[in-house]
Amino acid sequence: MDMVANGLLALGASPAMVHAVEEVEEFAPLARALVVNIGTLSSDRVPSMRKAAEAMATLGKPWVLDPVGVGGTTFRTTVARDLTAMKPTVIRANASEVLALAGATRVPASSVDSAHDSHDAIEAAKRLVCESHAVVVVTGAVDYVTDGQEVLCIRNGHPLMTRVTALGCTSSALVAAFLTVEPNALAASAQALAVLGLAAERAAVKAEGPGSLRWRLLDELAQLDETMLHEGLAIQ
Amino acid sequence: MDMVANGLLALGASPAMVHAVEEVEEFAPLARALVVNIGTLSSDRVPSMRKAAEAMATLGKPWVLDPVGVGGTTFRTTVARDLTAMKPTVIRANASEVLALAGATRVPASSVDSAHDSHDAIEAAKRLVCESHAVVVVTGAVDYVTDGQEVLCIRNGHPLMTRVTALGCTSSALVAAFLTVEPNALAASAQALAVLGLAAERAAVKAEGPGSLRWRLLDELAQLDETMLHEGLAIQ
Amino acid sequence: MDMVANGLLALGASPAMVHAVEEVEEFAPLARALVVNIGTLSSDRVPSMRKAAEAMATLGKPWVLDPVGVGGTTFRTTVARDLTAMKPTVIRANASEVLALAGATRVPASSVDSAHDSHDAIEAAKRLVCESHAVVVVTGAVDYVTDGQEVLCIRNGHPLMTRVTALGCTSSALVAAFLTVEPNALAASAQALAVLGLAAERAAVKAEGPGSLRWRLLDELAQLDETMLHEGLAIQ
Repeated sequence: MDMVANGLLALGASPAMVHAVEEVEEFAPLARALVVNIGTLSSDRVPSMRKAAEAMATLGKPWVLDPVGVGGTTFRTTVARDLTAMKPTVIRANASEVLALAGATRVPASSVDSAHDSHDAIEAAKRLVCESHAVVVVTGAVDYVTDGQEVLCIRNGHPLMTRVTALGCTSSALVAAFLTVEPNALAASAQALAVLGLAAERAAVKAEGPGSLRWRLLDELAQLDETMLHEGLAIQ
Repeated sequence: MDMVANGLLALGASPAMVHAVEEVEEFAPLARALVVNIGTLSSDRVPSMRKAAEAMATLGKPWVLDPVGVGGTTFRTTVARDLTAMKPTVIRANASEVLALAGATRVPASSVDSAHDSHDAIEAAKRLVCESHAVVVVTGAVDYVTDGQEVLCIRNGHPLMTRVTALGCTSSALVAAFLTVEPNALAASAQALAVLGLAAERAAVKAEGPGSLRWRLLDELAQLDETMLHEGLAIQ
Repeated sequence: MDMVANGLLALGASPAMVHAVEEVEEFAPLARALVVNIGTLSSDRVPSMRKAAEAMATLGKPWVLDPVGVGGTTFRTTVARDLTAMKPTVIRANASEVLALAGATRVPASSVDSAHDSHDAIEAAKRLVCESHAVVVVTGAVDYVTDGQEVLCIRNGHPLMTRVTALGCTSSALVAAFLTVEPNALAASAQALAVLGLAAERAAVKAEGPGSLRWRLLDELAQLDETMLHEGLAIQ
């Protein structure tokens, strides 16, 4: 939550972390986009997640599903599949998670890190689009975004990103932030990932390790301007 | 919690984060001050919050209420109003929160960030003092502290602080820490805010963005000495 | 959780934070080691903790108990004692916590920071080994590790570490990570603590305060190589 909130603030977005089911109905109309992240899942949070997703879908507002660790346990897979059926605008996951969510395999995940290459999940991502009607984002060394027809490929990013926690969660949050200004979910997703990746590339030039990458990434996110974006974004 | 704990440790204070209602009664006598922060509120935490506030009030020890996001939802407003009635020593909030808590307006908050200028909440802050008998702190570009009679104005701080999460929470925690050594709640609050603001000013000179501001702020908090305070604090 | 996850990632380990009791049974076979940390304890988390400890013990896999704040409240002490009886491979605690857990004293802890010197807890640590059959680690200015017979003494570390939150938790996590590659729990514990301490020493040379120590520590953890370890580790 810390990295996600700081990432959004660095970009100029305005995050709020809401857990209580009592707040969802009133809060949804105030939010411009939602991320449901099942990272540190517990059963008492599931009703809030479902209610929030439902509220956003009803209001016609964008929401992003981050099915962290889906495939690792039956409970997590059940919750993630349920949420997948609730009309997310975008699903953002790593390759193992996309494969698991698309039912290609029950991945015996020993961690929330991906055991697969993002490229290997493109076909599964397309199947997941058919099922969910969401744009699907597969992040990895290279990121892919697909609406079932088109597949965009984002080559921004840096290997050191895998040594910093919560950057996957942060990318989901950035996708949500971009959806508030770019209604095309394919474009919004690709831009969000490219911006995060570009900030990481710039941060990695000066970083001495994962500790400095993290704060430099926030500094870079806040400093990105049109010229940097124009020259640096690698979306194909 | 991470930034708050690190902020307190940087200052030389000794934080403990306690959630379990089973622990409150025994823990309260060991604590020298308490912050109740309703940031990521959930109904199962409310009994602990109430019990802790009650215990501190009974023991005659200071406690600070941080009514994060009050006015945003009915649930949050109800909890915050309840806690306001439980004799907090200090209430620390942004302008929108003070306005909402003083009943001036139901602020349709789309986030936990303030939609109002701190100056616009001074009258509401005074009304809130009458109701709660607490010293009320309104933080913003300029911070105000009032006991209903006097209004102190703190001009320390830096705009980049709005791009780092949890600095509001940290300021509440610093007020609590200062209350353990300065019994005058008006003075303690003003000094705590000025110290945090001064550390941020000093950090901002070298910071390249919100990522570096955050860790530099912790470094500066740990380094402040009497001369720096003497020269830097801007309390009127 | 943030510092712990980043510390493990910096080292090249692969952390997952699991809370839901529904996930424990399936997740345990996938994990190579477990830490049960009672830091921000709440009663609804206790069943997951117990079940996870049990599962690891049954599977013959290593798990580390971090009894944060034991002795502070009856609830916390009860939970910690219960877990101590569940065959942890290693118990990692500060001096006050070891004394409390060994029943030497009910420490009226006003915080999660130790009020005792690590050396004063060596005898209590040995008694705790007898009771629990775990290797016991007492961290402090000097760290001690004992299996009841031998006592290793680790002189790596830096005073500034006390001003950064979650480094105790991080040391427990590092012990768990080392247990996945070094089956001798005495050796694994000593090495993990020495590595963390050495990284902190190296970080402290360049750090300007607790804020910079924290990220520099992560950078150093990721950079440590065999020569540095050979020259820097101070285990006796």
